[in-house]
Amino acid sequence: VGRTAQSGVDVAVAASAHVVDGAGRSELDPRVARPVSLAAGSRIVIESFGSVTSSNDAPDPLERALTTVRDAESLGYASVRAESAAEWERIWRDHDIVIEGDPVDQTLLRFCTYHQRICTPAHADHLPIGARGLSCQAYQGAAFWDQEVYNLPAYLFTEPGLARSILEYRHRTLDGARRKAARLGYAGAYYAWISGITGDELCPDHFFVDVLTGRPIRNHFNVWQMHVAPDVVTSIERYVEVTGDRQFVVEHGAEIAFEVARFLHSFVRYDEWRGRYHCIRLLGPDEWHENVDDNAFTNHQVVAALRFAIDTHDWLRTQEPDRYAALAAQIELGVDEVDGWRRVHDRMHLPAPGDDDVIEQFAGFFDLEDTTPDVLRTRLLHPEEYWGWPNGVAVETQVAKQADVAMLLWLHADRFDDDVVRANYEYYEPRCSHNSSLSHAAFGMLAARLGDVERAHEHFRATASVDLLNTQHAVVGGTFIGGIHTAACGGTLQLAVAGFGGLACRQDALVIDPRLPPRWTSMTYPVNWRGQRLSVTISDEVTVTAHPDNDAPVDVVVDGARRSVAP
Amino acid sequence: VGRTAQSGVDVAVAASAHVVDGAGRSELDPRVARPVSLAAGSRIVIESFGSVTSSNDAPDPLERALTTVRDAESLGYASVRAESAAEWERIWRDHDIVIEGDPVDQTLLRFCTYHQRICTPAHADHLPIGARGLSCQAYQGAAFWDQEVYNLPAYLFTEPGLARSILEYRHRTLDGARRKAARLGYAGAYYAWISGITGDELCPDHFFVDVLTGRPIRNHFNVWQMHVAPDVVTSIERYVEVTGDRQFVVEHGAEIAFEVARFLHSFVRYDEWRGRYHCIRLLGPDEWHENVDDNAFTNHQVVAALRFAIDTHDWLRTQEPDRYAALAAQIELGVDEVDGWRRVHDRMHLPAPGDDDVIEQFAGFFDLEDTTPDVLRTRLLHPEEYWGWPNGVAVETQVAKQADVAMLLWLHADRFDDDVVRANYEYYEPRCSHNSSLSHAAFGMLAARLGDVERAHEHFRATASVDLLNTQHAVVGGTFIGGIHTAACGGTLQLAVAGFGGLACRQDALVIDPRLPPRWTSMTYPVNWRGQRLSVTISDEVTVTAHPDNDAPVDVVVDGARRSVAP
Repeated sequence: VGRTAQSGVDVAVAASAHVVDGAGRSELDPRVARPVSLAAGSRIVIESFGSVTSSNDAPDPLERALTTVRDAESLGYASVRAESAAEWERIWRDHDIVIEGDPVDQTLLRFCTYHQRICTPAHADHLPIGARGLSCQAYQGAAFWDQEVYNLPAYLFTEPGLARSILEYRHRTLDGARRKAARLGYAGAYYAWISGITGDELCPDHFFVDVLTGRPIRNHFNVWQMHVAPDVVTSIERYVEVTGDRQFVVEHGAEIAFEVARFLHSFVRYDEWRGRYHCIRLLGPDEWHENVDDNAFTNHQVVAALRFAIDTHDWLRTQEPDRYAALAAQIELGVDEVDGWRRVHDRMHLPAPGDDDVIEQFAGFFDLEDTTPDVLRTRLLHPEEYWGWPNGVAVETQVAKQADVAMLLWLHADRFDDDVVRANYEYYEPRCSHNSSLSHAAFGMLAARLGDVERAHEHFRATASVDLLNTQHAVVGGTFIGGIHTAACGGTLQLAVAGFGGLACRQDALVIDPRLPPRWTSMTYPVNWRGQRLSVTISDEVTVTAHPDNDAPVDVVVDGARRSVAP
Repeated sequence: VGRTAQSGVDVAVAASAHVVDGAGRSELDPRVARPVSLAAGSRIVIESFGSVTSSNDAPDPLERALTTVRDAESLGYASVRAESAAEWERIWRDHDIVIEGDPVDQTLLRFCTYHQRICTPAHADHLPIGARGLSCQAYQGAAFWDQEVYNLPAYLFTEPGLARSILEYRHRTLDGARRKAARLGYAGAYYAWISGITGDELCPDHFFVDVLTGRPIRNHFNVWQMHVAPDVVTSIERYVEVTGDRQFVVEHGAEIAFEVARFLHSFVRYDEWRGRYHCIRLLGPDEWHENVDDNAFTNHQVVAALRFAIDTHDWLRTQEPDRYAALAAQIELGVDEVDGWRRVHDRMHLPAPGDDDVIEQFAGFFDLEDTTPDVLRTRLLHPEEYWGWPNGVAVETQVAKQADVAMLLWLHADRFDDDVVRANYEYYEPRCSHNSSLSHAAFGMLAARLGDVERAHEHFRATASVDLLNTQHAVVGGTFIGGIHTAACGGTLQLAVAGFGGLACRQDALVIDPRLPPRWTSMTYPVNWRGQRLSVTISDEVTVTAHPDNDAPVDVVVDGARRSVAP
């Protein structure tokens, strides 16, 4: 048993080995080297079981690890192997996207499916999806907002139970979010930028090092990047929209939404002169611009989260009055508080498209130097230097590390028409360095929406291959990050199924509006929607096949025509 | 005639020379070298007049320069010289502080009196006092808040007309302050950090250079150091308090106060959750901490300026209804606006002394590393590096460049008792590096108030000798500043007369409560108060002598006893 340095998790490793055939089946103690005599041509079969367990999963991880090993011993290798194979069979059945015409893309899709799935704690509802999978030190196996925006949606139509687990994790970590809010002088719950098992903020004050001076940099991801809180709430909304699981809202979602709304109410500041609420001193998705006001993505997420909290409040009070009363008492919800949420919702400053349809990334963004990532590269004094806060080459320019306004247009697609999407894609894409793996999926979704499948496919390749081709720096500003880009995996799968496969959910029907990349002659993906399983195949036509075990018809809209697909 | 590079001022130089005695009084053209024959033992007297005039003073500076030279020629040298001598006689009569027992201090006082006076544009009311006198490039001969806080009060009891001129300069530059406010998205008038003839902001975005990387630093003096606006208003209040010149308020002061109140109303942000207004994203006096909230000095200045604006509004409306109506129409003062000022005044977050009587410099200051300037010096990578924004050695510590909370206790002395002053002096003085010449005068005033004349005298020596002993760096962060520290001159004179000489004005009487440094066996200073001239001599006793030309008695309070000093 040992304890990890950063997060203080106890980890136990147990192993056993037995000779199961040959050499008299005598017990082999793996801790002791012992000679075994084998006659020429004879055979020895050794079964070895190992278990790694941590205090994240069991109060006494060593006992759990030993029990696991002993259980495996008693089942035997063949049985354990068959159990595992059956589970993988089921997983691939639920997730595997099959394309024809591009074996590279097929490989990339399987790579992303596999890695996202193995780093999702499917066995528990109290653990996050590690933003860099199972193999990254800097991020400590903890979750970022990537989890809700990139991973969760990729499960909504495949294993919605995992989407629920992710949200249950956020409910279990509400107290950590409450502690973060209180520590920073806010009310309610402010989710951590780096969230582990307790939900307390794990992001240190000093994240990067200035390689030019050797001094640590006081990045503000842990205090200013507040969109993570409304991101959780809008993900609940999306989850309920797709799954219809309002019971989750009753049990957990309402409490999250109310506590985040409280936080938002205490976070915003009112400009009495102009009669508008503002979000001040932020980091939006683009991490190179800290200390900005009214980041468009953030403000829209705030309003959407408040809308959901208000609607949930009104619904719960009338539809589930007992639960409402209990919850209101538990969190001491004041009668006037919801009026406050309404005021903020109604009078929040919402950056809108300008005359040229472009939305300003944040207040004053257009006043910054208008240049490109290539130009900034020529200004670097050191190849490893950090481009952002406080004085990096991108800070006073319009060059963004990653999709920002593009995130807004992706997540709030219904609010903006194609002209706005096109104008913002054309404006922001050349000014984006795509230095985050979160970036290409967002731009890819916009390009796919606009029917520009060539460009969408370029973004797909970029995001899907980030780890296989190792296109991202493992070390940034002196900090080793490394690992698997889990969000890129989730983004790849969303871009494939929603972007190219055209899958969406509108009210009580599935909509399929595909636009495949030229080389993809066909694409087949599984759908698990509200308990009904379908297989969707896109080639010259769209074929939707219902699983024989389905117990209800599914309404599917293709080319504007709504049809009912019976079991 | 030439034009200055930075501020675009036309400068004309004219000169003449005549032989006034000997060699036949023939005209000497200074532009042409011409041999003059002199007999052995004979004498030649040449009178040469020169004039330097700029477009700051005349629309056609060359014409003005030539006229000045010709006028001088017609008067002749003896006459011009006599005029100058008489003017200096008068200036020294109005200003000279005479002490016995310390010839060094006497010299320092005369040095400061001389330099402050020559850089004050006494001939005009549309020019600022250059923050570095007549000989600094970086500051462009322009004014900072130093002018109101350090220079203006030093004239209140000597040449109050110059104090009025300074304030008239602020009135003449209101449009520049309005333009700055509008450009930054605010209402009303936001005075420039560096203010020249138009009042437009002259401070560039990039003030210092990071000597470690060679990159310019985006300092925010020009956008975030907003206390300069309320500083102007509280100086008007102080001016009127001492001089009784309410006519200034009618003519100019009300307009300034209203436009600044408007600016403040549009600048503050309301925290609806806690029901308080806040000043967000500031620089207080301490320039090493940018991007802070609720700087104690600033918030108190804001509330004081709003109080003056509200009182002035109510007074003007009832006492000068015609002027009020005209002004309200001119600046389109809305009926509800003053209610807004009252709300902000009443509900502004005002940092108060804690349990230990110490006032937090700004929100979160006490969470910063508690260390000293000496420790920070050991962390420097380069002797010339800038300690402040964005990543200098002082940024994440409690080490301040200059007096900050001390400024609050100095300017708002009546609001805080001696225990608070003592606690804050003891807390902040060791954490202050005094890297600004504005610093020692403030701490000196507090020490004098507390009766600690030894320490007050150390501060006096430090501020008075900054230029004679050249104790400040002329180059900071790659920027040459240099020149004479005019504010230190003003601070020295205030510390001498108000701090040691104990001169103050309470309602309609002068109060004299002296506490001389040990070596000063006597001190005599002139007072010009509301048209009456006095001479105050402090030794074992306090002697107040009225000038024979006075036309009214002056009430003077010494040792708590009020006496009337007749002409």
